Amino acid sequence: MLVVMAHNASPEDVQVVVDTIREMGYEAAPIPGKQRTAVGLVGNDGNVDASRLEALPGVLQVIHVSQPYKQVSREWREEPTVIELANGTRIGGNEVVMMAGPCSVESEAQILGMAQQIRDAGATVLRGGAFKPRSSPYSFQGMAEAGLRLLARARDETGLAIVTEAIDPEGVDIVAQYADIIQIGARNMQNFSLLRRAGRSGRPVLLKRGIAATINELLLSAEYILAEGNGQVILCERGVRSFDTHTRNLLDLTAIPVVKALSHLPIIADPSHGTGLRSKVIPMGRAAVAAGADGLIVEVHPDPEHALSDGAQSLYPPQFEELMTQVGEIARAIGRELTPRLPSPTHAR
Amino acid sequence: MLVVMAHNASPEDVQVVVDTIREMGYEAAPIPGKQRTAVGLVGNDGNVDASRLEALPGVLQVIHVSQPYKQVSREWREEPTVIELANGTRIGGNEVVMMAGPCSVESEAQILGMAQQIRDAGATVLRGGAFKPRSSPYSFQGMAEAGLRLLARARDETGLAIVTEAIDPEGVDIVAQYADIIQIGARNMQNFSLLRRAGRSGRPVLLKRGIAATINELLLSAEYILAEGNGQVILCERGVRSFDTHTRNLLDLTAIPVVKALSHLPIIADPSHGTGLRSKVIPMGRAAVAAGADGLIVEVHPDPEHALSDGAQSLYPPQFEELMTQVGEIARAIGRELTPRLPSPTHAR
Amino acid sequence: MLVVMAHNASPEDVQVVVDTIREMGYEAAPIPGKQRTAVGLVGNDGNVDASRLEALPGVLQVIHVSQPYKQVSREWREEPTVIELANGTRIGGNEVVMMAGPCSVESEAQILGMAQQIRDAGATVLRGGAFKPRSSPYSFQGMAEAGLRLLARARDETGLAIVTEAIDPEGVDIVAQYADIIQIGARNMQNFSLLRRAGRSGRPVLLKRGIAATINELLLSAEYILAEGNGQVILCERGVRSFDTHTRNLLDLTAIPVVKALSHLPIIADPSHGTGLRSKVIPMGRAAVAAGADGLIVEVHPDPEHALSDGAQSLYPPQFEELMTQVGEIARAIGRELTPRLPSPTHAR
Amino acid sequence: MLVVMAHNASPEDVQVVVDTIREMGYEAAPIPGKQRTAVGLVGNDGNVDASRLEALPGVLQVIHVSQPYKQVSREWREEPTVIELANGTRIGGNEVVMMAGPCSVESEAQILGMAQQIRDAGATVLRGGAFKPRSSPYSFQGMAEAGLRLLARARDETGLAIVTEAIDPEGVDIVAQYADIIQIGARNMQNFSLLRRAGRSGRPVLLKRGIAATINELLLSAEYILAEGNGQVILCERGVRSFDTHTRNLLDLTAIPVVKALSHLPIIADPSHGTGLRSKVIPMGRAAVAAGADGLIVEVHPDPEHALSDGAQSLYPPQFEELMTQVGEIARAIGRELTPRLPSPTHAR
Repeated sequence: MLVVMAHNASPEDVQVVVDTIREMGYEAAPIPGKQRTAVGLVGNDGNVDASRLEALPGVLQVIHVSQPYKQVSREWREEPTVIELANGTRIGGNEVVMMAGPCSVESEAQILGMAQQIRDAGATVLRGGAFKPRSSPYSFQGMAEAGLRLLARARDETGLAIVTEAIDPEGVDIVAQYADIIQIGARNMQNFSLLRRAGRSGRPVLLKRGIAATINELLLSAEYILAEGNGQVILCERGVRSFDTHTRNLLDLTAIPVVKALSHLPIIADPSHGTGLRSKVIPMGRAAVAAGADGLIVEVHPDPEHALSDGAQSLYPPQFEELMTQVGEIARAIGRELTPRLPSPTHAR
Repeated sequence: MLVVMAHNASPEDVQVVVDTIREMGYEAAPIPGKQRTAVGLVGNDGNVDASRLEALPGVLQVIHVSQPYKQVSREWREEPTVIELANGTRIGGNEVVMMAGPCSVESEAQILGMAQQIRDAGATVLRGGAFKPRSSPYSFQGMAEAGLRLLARARDETGLAIVTEAIDPEGVDIVAQYADIIQIGARNMQNFSLLRRAGRSGRPVLLKRGIAATINELLLSAEYILAEGNGQVILCERGVRSFDTHTRNLLDLTAIPVVKALSHLPIIADPSHGTGLRSKVIPMGRAAVAAGADGLIVEVHPDPEHALSDGAQSLYPPQFEELMTQVGEIARAIGRELTPRLPSPTHAR
Repeated sequence: MLVVMAHNASPEDVQVVVDTIREMGYEAAPIPGKQRTAVGLVGNDGNVDASRLEALPGVLQVIHVSQPYKQVSREWREEPTVIELANGTRIGGNEVVMMAGPCSVESEAQILGMAQQIRDAGATVLRGGAFKPRSSPYSFQGMAEAGLRLLARARDETGLAIVTEAIDPEGVDIVAQYADIIQIGARNMQNFSLLRRAGRSGRPVLLKRGIAATINELLLSAEYILAEGNGQVILCERGVRSFDTHTRNLLDLTAIPVVKALSHLPIIADPSHGTGLRSKVIPMGRAAVAAGADGLIVEVHPDPEHALSDGAQSLYPPQFEELMTQVGEIARAIGRELTPRLPSPTHAR
Repeated sequence: MLVVMAHNASPEDVQVVVDTIREMGYEAAPIPGKQRTAVGLVGNDGNVDASRLEALPGVLQVIHVSQPYKQVSREWREEPTVIELANGTRIGGNEVVMMAGPCSVESEAQILGMAQQIRDAGATVLRGGAFKPRSSPYSFQGMAEAGLRLLARARDETGLAIVTEAIDPEGVDIVAQYADIIQIGARNMQNFSLLRRAGRSGRPVLLKRGIAATINELLLSAEYILAEGNGQVILCERGVRSFDTHTRNLLDLTAIPVVKALSHLPIIADPSHGTGLRSKVIPMGRAAVAAGADGLIVEVHPDPEHALSDGAQSLYPPQFEELMTQVGEIARAIGRELTPRLPSPTHAR
């Protein structure tokens, strides 16, 4: 940590900073400059309270050199975290996982049919929302536990693993009974009560980046889950807010190699929410894998014209098959493989 | 609602849009253009599912003309909502309310002393966090219910009303027992379970704008509270995320007159979080009132150098007195008044 | 300057950084930390080439402590720059200057009538574009030199000073013949050839902040003008790009006190372009003055319905009179005054 | 174009809008709604002056349905523009072009050596700045015409085509004498005098997206060049401004498929400026090609530690070879090819 003094700070101001750093239990290393003096804080263990230093007279700025997170960092754990699901899908290793399904679970016929189709196309994880966070209180809010039961049935019939969202602390317990992966959505990335409960659930957690979250904030939110003893976190880039209205969000694919350098956790991409446009899902899905993503989560709908939510960004099933083929080739071009297909249905658990 | 067709959409595509609109129970009005055709949806009652239209073949874009929110709008209620607290403070009328206090409740001496000082300076509402949402799981998380009890004691001694934050649905019930106003923080603006519970609490709610929330999203989140039967919502502009690192956030003061035109709800500003810099709180507090804010919420700390959170943006008590004076003059310059001072302590409830 | 090493940087990597800093002629001060080592560069004179250090092996990040600009900084010159125009208007002192007029000069009747009206309302500087930078090549591009002649005529008749835009290096010479202040627009803030030419023009320059320029970039662009020997630069906040579409831009009023702390140059605000909405110009003009702006530049049009550009954000003349009154009261509330009215027309130069 | 009326607009207000549209020579189609009325403008030929309608009483908003650009659009020209350079490189067809070289031309040895290396690696276009736009007036500004002569010499020796930047209108004429492609940088994307001159140069133009330019603005700037009769424009995504400081810019790869749908012009990506970090150039270069880019422009430097600019984002030559290999495989995975290698040096022109 570096405490930068204003150019007109007095020697007494500098001394107060030095004394305060020592009082906090660290070493202080003043660095005089032509324009201004800075004071280095030596021995930062990640617990320094910067705001106390920022508030001292003559202090211009406090610059953070150490990262504020711990257990999620590469420095804490060098080798990548690999998460293995009950159906054999491994996330975070050399294989690229494909998660797919409708935005919302709408009916038995819809989710079972959809599950069959994405399984036949080669996906190994089924997505589908039972609890839906919606900007408007008047929009469809999901089928709740009835939807979870249908997802579990789809798993029984196809062998697909299930990822679905929890939107409040109580919901975590219900979702954990049915799902293989608990999803935490972008709007809840800093819902710390929810993160803590997910950390205690014992289930892998798919944590989506908030609409304007920095990468540091994403990692700090993951840290909440790890701090509860749950190391099975999958991060997800799904687009950030931008000034251009051509796409719903701005898919920040550079976040993928940035996160991979900072953290041992797997990171996947959501090109459906990341663009909001069906016609952009295939090129951006390809691009995410080329950038190094450990997988994709994609919305597919058997009949997007009649979807209850997000129809405009859902792929038609034949488009999903095309995406699988193209992404498989991109993965091979960079020395990776898609997750192996599930064994034939008769062997499904 | 206007459905814009791609330039190469066929007449059949246009017909499908027209038929779908009629099937949904609305009238369709095609508008041919030189470049492309658009189809107007006539009779929009706010329940149209746009994604169904967006998913139709040949559709380029769906443009929303109607607002997605209802009860919060000026069209629903012409006259401004005025919220009256037990100590007589009125929010949303001609008076400008001043809320002040420390970021966090830290001790009995701190909060009681602080309350006395801001009351003497003329404020009528005391702020102070007992439950603190923090980006890092390793930061101070607040005194919880013990903090609430101290706030209630400060109210008893000074007559100030209390505003303090709830961070999860269960917390709403506890906070509602002690506080005059329940605050919902920026990170929780789209925590819909929390909004609904606050809507059922019977208490006024201070709803802060999310870090990258559009004004429409802010109003839709307020709509969640009104939809539960609670019309006592105070909106708060507290800065949005920006690309410039000189300030912690970018205080969007234009949101104040924009919200006032769209909604009957009161809106205040938080220049402390909105700038993150003590030296900018006074000018931006003045600017917010000049822009038409119904009040300010400001961080003040008796000893910012030893604050447990947000020390760098907290005013010293004499600075707060200066702010009160300057804001009072600005209010008068535009024909408003500060909330009258509270009667002397012996009359406090 | 602080060179932060990756956590797995070797002692040799650190040594290379130390050696390189010394080779560059500065002192190196290593600061070991628990997570990582940093190396302070002592004696930074503002000419350090950071990219050379960033490129060294094991370097994670280079953090700038010194500011990259010089002559524009408060550290270079403590007292505020005050610019005095031929008609007596002083910009940057205690007076608040009002600049007003149409977006574009459209005709003799329009500009002379407008000049009379804003002068009668109390403004002292007339704005009006003769060269218009337009996003589309098919939009009205201005009356060019004929427009400049009309502006000069308006000055002769009213005593108002003239501010008008130059859009390329050659244009600077023509504009300098007619104008009291040469405006450089937001799109050209980093058109360095234009900045240099304006720096050599001998005229005061009004430099608008680019649509997504950081405050450092704005000050560096001003530095280009000062580096040519021209210290008469007026900065202008006019809104930055945002994700919300309610307003054309997001007026960043906090930039005003931030710039005032960093630089001795005057700064004004443009609430017309900053909001793009006529109904928001008055509240945001008030707010800018309350935040400490040294003046406003505002679009007024005698007949906005028939304006050739920017009609929707132009005030009607009676609205401008209302703005003058309100802004005058705000100025007095913070101990400032509007620029005194010009003497009666018979005394105009 | 759709003119949306405020909910309290009177029938007279609506009539004025209808009359004004007719007076402008178009048809008006009112669309009544439950909340508000809208008026469609039928027959928009792209020349409608929206601000005139926005300024009418009772108008809430004007919504643009037609695109403001013409010649750059797919609607103007269905088949993709393919630009062929003198050395046989074709840009915009099925081949993916690789442009590479140092940020700045620094010396004869540097540029000739570099040219040889990138040519041997398979690139066909050499980049290198002779005129450098720099945020600070005190940074290295390039070798000017001496640099151009060195680039021409590198072309003679290697057969590579040359792309280099012009930073002002006069510069265009000089650059056009030496370069195969004239580059217009991000800061100058809306320097309309420069765009016009480039449009009259007769040379292909590489137009980089501005730091916060919308895709519409990028296309409108290209339109300035086409409007001068020069259809040989290559667009370039190079990152937009963001709130996260991990990367220099946020590379918006979705812009690639978005532009390809809207326009017939080729678009390439610059992962060097787009990320600012050497370690992110390879993954993001791969991702850009996977997203459909027609090529890459990449900074390579023989000795980044001693580069005069942008050292931290320049690849080492062996890294560039690795990028060529990986990008070639990605291109094949989506059915494209890299531009064929140049014939051996003895056949260079």
